[in-house]
Amino acid sequence: MRKLLIIICVLLVPAATFATAISSETQSCLRCHNGLTPGIVADWESSRHSRTTPEEALAKPEIQRTISAGEVDEKLRGNVVGCYECHGLNADKHKDNFSHFGFSINIVVSPNDCAICHPVETEQYAGSKKANAIGNLAKNPVYHGLVNSIIGPKEVEGTMIKASDPSDFTRQDACFACHGTVIEVKGMKTVKAKISTKVPELTNWPNQGVGRINPDGSMGACTSCHARHAFSIEVARKPHTCAQCHLEPDVPAWNIYAASKHGNIYLSDNHKWNFEAVPWKLGTDFKAPTCATCHVSLVTTPDGGTIAERTHDFGGRLWVRLFGLIYTHPQPKSGDTSIIRNADGLPLPTTFLGLPASEFLIDPDEQARRKGLMEAVCKGCHSTYWVTRHFDKMDNTIEETDKMTLQATKLVTYAWDNGLADASNPFDEAIERKWVKQWLFYGNNARYASAMTGAQDYVAFKYGWWGLTTNLQEMKDKIDMKKALKEEKED
Amino acid sequence: MRKLLIIICVLLVPAATFATAISSETQSCLRCHNGLTPGIVADWESSRHSRTTPEEALAKPEIQRTISAGEVDEKLRGNVVGCYECHGLNADKHKDNFSHFGFSINIVVSPNDCAICHPVETEQYAGSKKANAIGNLAKNPVYHGLVNSIIGPKEVEGTMIKASDPSDFTRQDACFACHGTVIEVKGMKTVKAKISTKVPELTNWPNQGVGRINPDGSMGACTSCHARHAFSIEVARKPHTCAQCHLEPDVPAWNIYAASKHGNIYLSDNHKWNFEAVPWKLGTDFKAPTCATCHVSLVTTPDGGTIAERTHDFGGRLWVRLFGLIYTHPQPKSGDTSIIRNADGLPLPTTFLGLPASEFLIDPDEQARRKGLMEAVCKGCHSTYWVTRHFDKMDNTIEETDKMTLQATKLVTYAWDNGLADASNPFDEAIERKWVKQWLFYGNNARYASAMTGAQDYVAFKYGWWGLTTNLQEMKDKIDMKKALKEEKED
Amino acid sequence: MRKLLIIICVLLVPAATFATAISSETQSCLRCHNGLTPGIVADWESSRHSRTTPEEALAKPEIQRTISAGEVDEKLRGNVVGCYECHGLNADKHKDNFSHFGFSINIVVSPNDCAICHPVETEQYAGSKKANAIGNLAKNPVYHGLVNSIIGPKEVEGTMIKASDPSDFTRQDACFACHGTVIEVKGMKTVKAKISTKVPELTNWPNQGVGRINPDGSMGACTSCHARHAFSIEVARKPHTCAQCHLEPDVPAWNIYAASKHGNIYLSDNHKWNFEAVPWKLGTDFKAPTCATCHVSLVTTPDGGTIAERTHDFGGRLWVRLFGLIYTHPQPKSGDTSIIRNADGLPLPTTFLGLPASEFLIDPDEQARRKGLMEAVCKGCHSTYWVTRHFDKMDNTIEETDKMTLQATKLVTYAWDNGLADASNPFDEAIERKWVKQWLFYGNNARYASAMTGAQDYVAFKYGWWGLTTNLQEMKDKIDMKKALKEEKED
Repeated sequence: MRKLLIIICVLLVPAATFATAISSETQSCLRCHNGLTPGIVADWESSRHSRTTPEEALAKPEIQRTISAGEVDEKLRGNVVGCYECHGLNADKHKDNFSHFGFSINIVVSPNDCAICHPVETEQYAGSKKANAIGNLAKNPVYHGLVNSIIGPKEVEGTMIKASDPSDFTRQDACFACHGTVIEVKGMKTVKAKISTKVPELTNWPNQGVGRINPDGSMGACTSCHARHAFSIEVARKPHTCAQCHLEPDVPAWNIYAASKHGNIYLSDNHKWNFEAVPWKLGTDFKAPTCATCHVSLVTTPDGGTIAERTHDFGGRLWVRLFGLIYTHPQPKSGDTSIIRNADGLPLPTTFLGLPASEFLIDPDEQARRKGLMEAVCKGCHSTYWVTRHFDKMDNTIEETDKMTLQATKLVTYAWDNGLADASNPFDEAIERKWVKQWLFYGNNARYASAMTGAQDYVAFKYGWWGLTTNLQEMKDKIDMKKALKEEKED
Repeated sequence: MRKLLIIICVLLVPAATFATAISSETQSCLRCHNGLTPGIVADWESSRHSRTTPEEALAKPEIQRTISAGEVDEKLRGNVVGCYECHGLNADKHKDNFSHFGFSINIVVSPNDCAICHPVETEQYAGSKKANAIGNLAKNPVYHGLVNSIIGPKEVEGTMIKASDPSDFTRQDACFACHGTVIEVKGMKTVKAKISTKVPELTNWPNQGVGRINPDGSMGACTSCHARHAFSIEVARKPHTCAQCHLEPDVPAWNIYAASKHGNIYLSDNHKWNFEAVPWKLGTDFKAPTCATCHVSLVTTPDGGTIAERTHDFGGRLWVRLFGLIYTHPQPKSGDTSIIRNADGLPLPTTFLGLPASEFLIDPDEQARRKGLMEAVCKGCHSTYWVTRHFDKMDNTIEETDKMTLQATKLVTYAWDNGLADASNPFDEAIERKWVKQWLFYGNNARYASAMTGAQDYVAFKYGWWGLTTNLQEMKDKIDMKKALKEEKED
Repeated sequence: MRKLLIIICVLLVPAATFATAISSETQSCLRCHNGLTPGIVADWESSRHSRTTPEEALAKPEIQRTISAGEVDEKLRGNVVGCYECHGLNADKHKDNFSHFGFSINIVVSPNDCAICHPVETEQYAGSKKANAIGNLAKNPVYHGLVNSIIGPKEVEGTMIKASDPSDFTRQDACFACHGTVIEVKGMKTVKAKISTKVPELTNWPNQGVGRINPDGSMGACTSCHARHAFSIEVARKPHTCAQCHLEPDVPAWNIYAASKHGNIYLSDNHKWNFEAVPWKLGTDFKAPTCATCHVSLVTTPDGGTIAERTHDFGGRLWVRLFGLIYTHPQPKSGDTSIIRNADGLPLPTTFLGLPASEFLIDPDEQARRKGLMEAVCKGCHSTYWVTRHFDKMDNTIEETDKMTLQATKLVTYAWDNGLADASNPFDEAIERKWVKQWLFYGNNARYASAMTGAQDYVAFKYGWWGLTTNLQEMKDKIDMKKALKEEKED
């Protein structure tokens, strides 16, 4: 079979000479894929992986390393990290493993495969909310209800609207595109192409969501951020990567960053910066933070003093959770938030009135520790006084926007209590959607903009306070009318 | 007169020496305009046109050519393509031709002028929906009604709102800025400037809309995409060009691209790419597609194998029409869509309930052929299995969003049938506008995001399913209230 | 004390050698801050300030100078412009001056400090609306009411919504983040850091709003646009700087620019331009305008002929005020708009029905003069005829959008006159918010897009005419329902 492959590909593509550090297996992959999928091959050729053997990576001073394993198996150590080095790992654990022209190949490379060289990052990530992003939606009945209300198809009869559950494709296309899908193997399938092959049939594929459940049972997709086959640290450090999911109106990180002072400096000046340097030296390599600077990267002073340690637990420098739920609250202790139970028995970090489920949330000491990690980054440029005042202002915005959500909760509760809306599904009626907008859109935006200092229009007119105050009035108008109509009917 | 001009300009600007390949006429133009409009002269100086004679262009290997004529008239062959070479062509056909200091000049350079060197592109373009973009709005009574409802001024008396037709200026400023205006000549006009001149007075000018009807009768404006006088292939290949018209909320191509994986890679990495290479080599010249890659450009493998032929029929690689109309449908056979008649006799590609006017639309074979052209581009990086699954998902999104439009149609029809809205103009009342939003904003966004794989927030919260499902509930609330008020009045 | 400082810092950071042109005071600053806030030090090191003494700056030909003082005090002349040269100026006028390790330091550097070298820019700025941006909101009771309605917290009881005044923090976070805050000194405060210090406690700090009232009594913050410690002319000239405040939905300058032909060319092509050249040569240094080109910069032809003089009065090339108020009107005579009184006695440049307070607004001659300044920039690339037609179109859009606002005013007035809304606060109810959207969002967007020629979706579907006409219908629906309910109650 391998012979056949070589014959076919020698006919298909011109001979190419590869560096001797490329394994013979990867050379076989390249021989065909160079002609079949040249884009992805060129992408890999531009990568650090294609130029570096684990041996060379391990020889670097520790602070310059992007490999976190102390050792790498001899079999892998001497070759650059090519196709087969990733797609050929841990075959026994991969239900998506198949024989591909005589090679044992996995379709989906998982964090557990990457862990051969990057175990520290994999472990950090595994504990994060990102790794648990599917269950945090799907195993939480309240959130699952919100998902189904939003993306489930509807059927109109007269003026009645009947709901049904979302299809797998729409789940994959919407919420779970970011959160991740469950990839399972359902037998084999013949794919007709230039060279037809039999491949494992995968459910909910393709997907690069952050909490993807892989055919080897692991959770996450490193390619969510380290895009495709260049695995570029430059791309991951630039904010456009985060912008794939963290967008207005619900998680407006990118939009607000782009309109902030930091974002302005990045967008105006980044052509002069170095996005590949490890460690990433503040002032020398870059002059304003991107998302990665504050949340992920190993950041040092120009002479190598550590400002922040690298972490792939994306909540590792966060103490308060600003978005996604009805009220803000201390970060959850576990990345798996579906285990939380609030005082009402619901799997939410606060009650509908804002009481936190403190047992499941980090305590003030841990909050202070994490805030200290973030403040250390800020203080690379800003004075301690400046930083203190900045977070004081943010604390006030958190408090006020939570109160504004509470007012909307009072109005929707009034509607529920007075038969003007049906609480059995709290997310489907027009007035309930307005309540959701109060926290998921308007509150989130004001808080994000406050946290990122700048992008004031997001506090003021774009979703922020304009939304918070207009929305209450619209809810009131709706209630007044529904009430009048109800009373009239009852007359 | 020419002598006078030379005397004036010798006084105005410092002497400049021009390459001998610049025609004497263009040298005359430059002598004055170098001082009068230096920006546009410098723009041209940066262009391929200013450095290349047709003769040189024709000498290149065919795959590297940006000229598609087999031959060029001897008069033009030996000089670079300067002011006079374009503004002096086909004078007899140009109603906007006038005598300008002794030279016979057209104000508006048209696709027919460009066709001297670029006949293949001109012909492809002439058959496209873009070239027909004015008539496709203006000659279609339904669409014309939508335009007039949206941009026509209103007059309030009491609580009545009276509509009138939009002004020419507002047509030029809004819909027809993109679609194109009709440029006609209305006599001559004296323009007072440093040197006062008499020029043809043009209607609806300036405009660079894609379907502009030019004073020589041709349709289109190459400068829509090949901006101003650099005619840069780099600018046209970058997505910011398409973003001038293809923006949320109605045609959200740019916004969704920017938030997709492809857009992320483009925005993070494009400073390393080559946007001027012809042919455009995947992997070597660029690593992620822009709009032009998928829809227009000649794309090859690094060693020159054709992945996609160049086309200036922008629908040439499209099989289904995702946007702009009530329901999706196969692409129309003709670029002139005003000739379509559906089963209800209306000039729409489907009925209000979604039945396609199949006679005017491409058949499944042609759909498959075009889909194949697009898939070939995808497969430059992605496996056949990946691509198949991607389009399966998109097909489902098309089907589900069309159904969600149908539900909104049922509600607005209920309002029409029950005297709660007036169907005589289906686009002017608040509830009707909600119906329009269902397909023109919400459905379009979900489909575009599905098609471009990524930008999941546009499927979920940003216009997508959040909009589709909230909007139905808002429509229902409006109907319930209008109905109750009507019943009450009738009591 | 200075000795102690030197000892501490010698322990803290490695020895560094600084150019002899750095003052001994600034060397002391750098010795500590190099280790404490390395980002801001590196930012400064990248600046023109760190490389140039005033003496060298004064030696340049006038057209190349970025210094506008004719002379600079001997004490400052021979050193580069470092930490102490800015933070040590005019100590007697600075209420925020304090003793910092033996040095007399101001926390806030103000325009009056910058005026030592840049007096012309400071004076131009001082007369602008930007410098007066706090009072223009806060001293105008109508506008102050709008601010308070939008950002003041609300309390719901039953279905009643009670309003209270916004907190200082929220004022700082929202409107006054852009407009500027009042920075006052409230005693001293100990800041705990690596080296604890006592610093003046400042109100409403940090802030870089354009009209900030500084502890020395001056108004403005040069760092609004010349970000942080690089004071980069490149950053200020790029549109991302303006985008920090001038964003949709209310002041959509950035969004519309980005979608315009000019913005397309900037975004596609600017990597080839020179953003640091002084003077800024059209065609040679750049090929399409950014915000700064049209509104601020000294722009010349490639051979140095002046196209536009530099101005830091941002309204200096503007004749009509397109945004922020109910109707457009000629630019105000004074940067302090709180002095305006209209025919109804209100501090607004027009009445609610559109009558201008002409006495406070520039006259037609001054309008023509300023329009001429702007047109001169346009004519660097466009013909006089083109430019004339462009502004004719814009004039029509101004007129039509103002009329569309008037129709919304008629509807809200109907509501006020018929007891359907309470005019005592014209900004707080849902129907009143729709009226505000008519001018602050929809009218503004259509006008901006018309002015910047392009971004047609902002005239059409994105806030523009779609908003203008849909909003009237929504207002009508609201009035019809409120009226019916009121009548029913009165029965």
